Amino acid sequence: MNFPRAEFEARYARLQEALGQIGADALLVTSEANFNYFTGYIAAHPWVSFSRNLLAILPREAPPAIIAPAFLADEARDQSWIEQVIPSTEVGEAPVPAIIGAVRELGLADARIGAELGYEHRLGVSYLDFQRLQDALPQTTFVDAAEAIWSLRMRKSPAEVDCLREACRITDVALGQLFDEVQPGMTERAIAQRLGELLLAAGADRVGWIMMTSGRGQYHRTFGVPRQRIPESGDMVWLDVSAIVNGYGADYDRAAVVGGPTAEQVALQETVHEATMAGVRAIAPGAPVSAVVEAVSAALVDAGLQPLDSGRIGHGLGLQSTEPPDISLTDPTILAPGMIITVEPAIIRDHGIYQVEQNVAVTETGYELLSRTSPELRTI
Amino acid sequence: MNFPRAEFEARYARLQEALGQIGADALLVTSEANFNYFTGYIAAHPWVSFSRNLLAILPREAPPAIIAPAFLADEARDQSWIEQVIPSTEVGEAPVPAIIGAVRELGLADARIGAELGYEHRLGVSYLDFQRLQDALPQTTFVDAAEAIWSLRMRKSPAEVDCLREACRITDVALGQLFDEVQPGMTERAIAQRLGELLLAAGADRVGWIMMTSGRGQYHRTFGVPRQRIPESGDMVWLDVSAIVNGYGADYDRAAVVGGPTAEQVALQETVHEATMAGVRAIAPGAPVSAVVEAVSAALVDAGLQPLDSGRIGHGLGLQSTEPPDISLTDPTILAPGMIITVEPAIIRDHGIYQVEQNVAVTETGYELLSRTSPELRTI
Repeated sequence: MNFPRAEFEARYARLQEALGQIGADALLVTSEANFNYFTGYIAAHPWVSFSRNLLAILPREAPPAIIAPAFLADEARDQSWIEQVIPSTEVGEAPVPAIIGAVRELGLADARIGAELGYEHRLGVSYLDFQRLQDALPQTTFVDAAEAIWSLRMRKSPAEVDCLREACRITDVALGQLFDEVQPGMTERAIAQRLGELLLAAGADRVGWIMMTSGRGQYHRTFGVPRQRIPESGDMVWLDVSAIVNGYGADYDRAAVVGGPTAEQVALQETVHEATMAGVRAIAPGAPVSAVVEAVSAALVDAGLQPLDSGRIGHGLGLQSTEPPDISLTDPTILAPGMIITVEPAIIRDHGIYQVEQNVAVTETGYELLSRTSPELRTI
Repeated sequence: MNFPRAEFEARYARLQEALGQIGADALLVTSEANFNYFTGYIAAHPWVSFSRNLLAILPREAPPAIIAPAFLADEARDQSWIEQVIPSTEVGEAPVPAIIGAVRELGLADARIGAELGYEHRLGVSYLDFQRLQDALPQTTFVDAAEAIWSLRMRKSPAEVDCLREACRITDVALGQLFDEVQPGMTERAIAQRLGELLLAAGADRVGWIMMTSGRGQYHRTFGVPRQRIPESGDMVWLDVSAIVNGYGADYDRAAVVGGPTAEQVALQETVHEATMAGVRAIAPGAPVSAVVEAVSAALVDAGLQPLDSGRIGHGLGLQSTEPPDISLTDPTILAPGMIITVEPAIIRDHGIYQVEQNVAVTETGYELLSRTSPELRTI
């Protein structure tokens, strides 16, 4: 288990309550983040391959069960707090017979079962396998559990906040070292590979992603995978990176300019940083997320820029790189202790992406800034 | 683009033929591997987040189109061979209106559209969003395109084989260096982090995964994520690893014993290696995959072990860590040039996992062994 047993018992108690609120008798879990969150058994294989499935059935009023590929069943029993592990041997299709058996065994054949059907969810089984499951259980009603799941996962426990704090610390260390080291003439790909090494050396379990771009004009309109391109003198090198610790990933960007930034670039970076921090200071339990956007927008207007539109300037983060809530004018979420969000307004110019993304935890009394890397444009 | 334009035109021509064979007029692509395969636009963001979608509609008789989040639209236009890019602004849900618009524009409103519904596929949109799409297009018939997609992706082009050859070369270098370096007293996690650094330093774009276990008895029944456990004297340290190059990932395992292997361990490793290579030598165009299993099984029986059962002892690989075909007695696939498969029978004992997985390309005349790391049990 990657957390103490009490952590999972607390999550399960909250789940039981959330299921009650949507009138569901159980939750069927098929995707990586939810499986890890509720079971504590962190596997690698079933999530990098579509050949086999790792599933959990979490009833409101009966003991939970895991359905695991046979060769992982012992490991699942060892590493999860859940005692009942049902082995399956299917390859290439979901273990529908095992699910049906478990549903009947747990008294759920005519129940309402929540599933990962809706908002910011993906089923971890094929569409046709889910249809087969529904056809085989005609008395069972499958209902969307997205809202119930997000209501839990949005609010992190202290142990989850610890993981994200550590992921941010590692990212700070690695980004600092990278900008000290990088020399003109390195390709985007070489820079990204070095950053990956530094993230691992600083203690990341793995690298969630490294997005980067370099250049001016059209080159700056990419947010993708590192290229063989060598940044030229005057180019901005922009990096958005995620160190993963115990499944939880940081998410923020920093940038440098080959040969050093111009005065205009320094000023734009300062403007966006100040606007971002105005948003960060608006973070407090009880505040609507729209208050964060309004604070950023007001600071941008003060600096002579356009106010923000209806898009989002941040998002929750945790087991996934983006999670609810949206930090937008239209998301109705009220901030609460344990939420962790990014604030990342951007000023896009032909000569660069000006953005100093911050990762911030909502505390009982205000906020904690987790990302501490210097906001300054560094020099390569 | 990560390959020359001709590569994508060839893939598209093959797709048009495969769609004809399943009576479909177009393919709707929503998941990472398929999107990358058909479009050549390698993005990072939409695949690490469930907030936005990157999609492609690939008609048999009209020009293909990409639907991309607005902030990625320019990049998609720059980097894909596909000219038509439709921007979308949806966050938290699939761009259903844009899909409907494109389907109508492309004359597909009453057509049969293939989708990633079945065998070893996952939809990249939520279940409810796919339902919404179907409801909004009542004249459109969505059919399973899994078989058509796999018929293409199973047979790699020379350029794809190059990527996997390079991923294997990198893995060879990194595993060799790792076993030279690792010292007793390092945790599983520290060993995995060092391997990650070595894979990146050797030229991997990223690390697909590192699965590992160490120990004896129950400790060896794990295949999961590296732990804080320190391997003790006599423990086997088993690693299964994937270096990614241009999206294509190697997949093989090697192992070492703290203090060095016993004579029995050396003999078991030799036995499994010889059986594996008997399977490798059975690889040739025109041979059924079952012939590989039979060759391995016969070698195991010759060594006094049990014959293989109906499970699989290998699989295809490419853009995903496991792809069809299964290397099993029951999979009907006939090997053909360009297929790349693993052969990985295992002998599991309390004192270790004896397995020397190989990655092998089917050539015009036989096979090419891509994984060249020494099969021997190394000493830590």
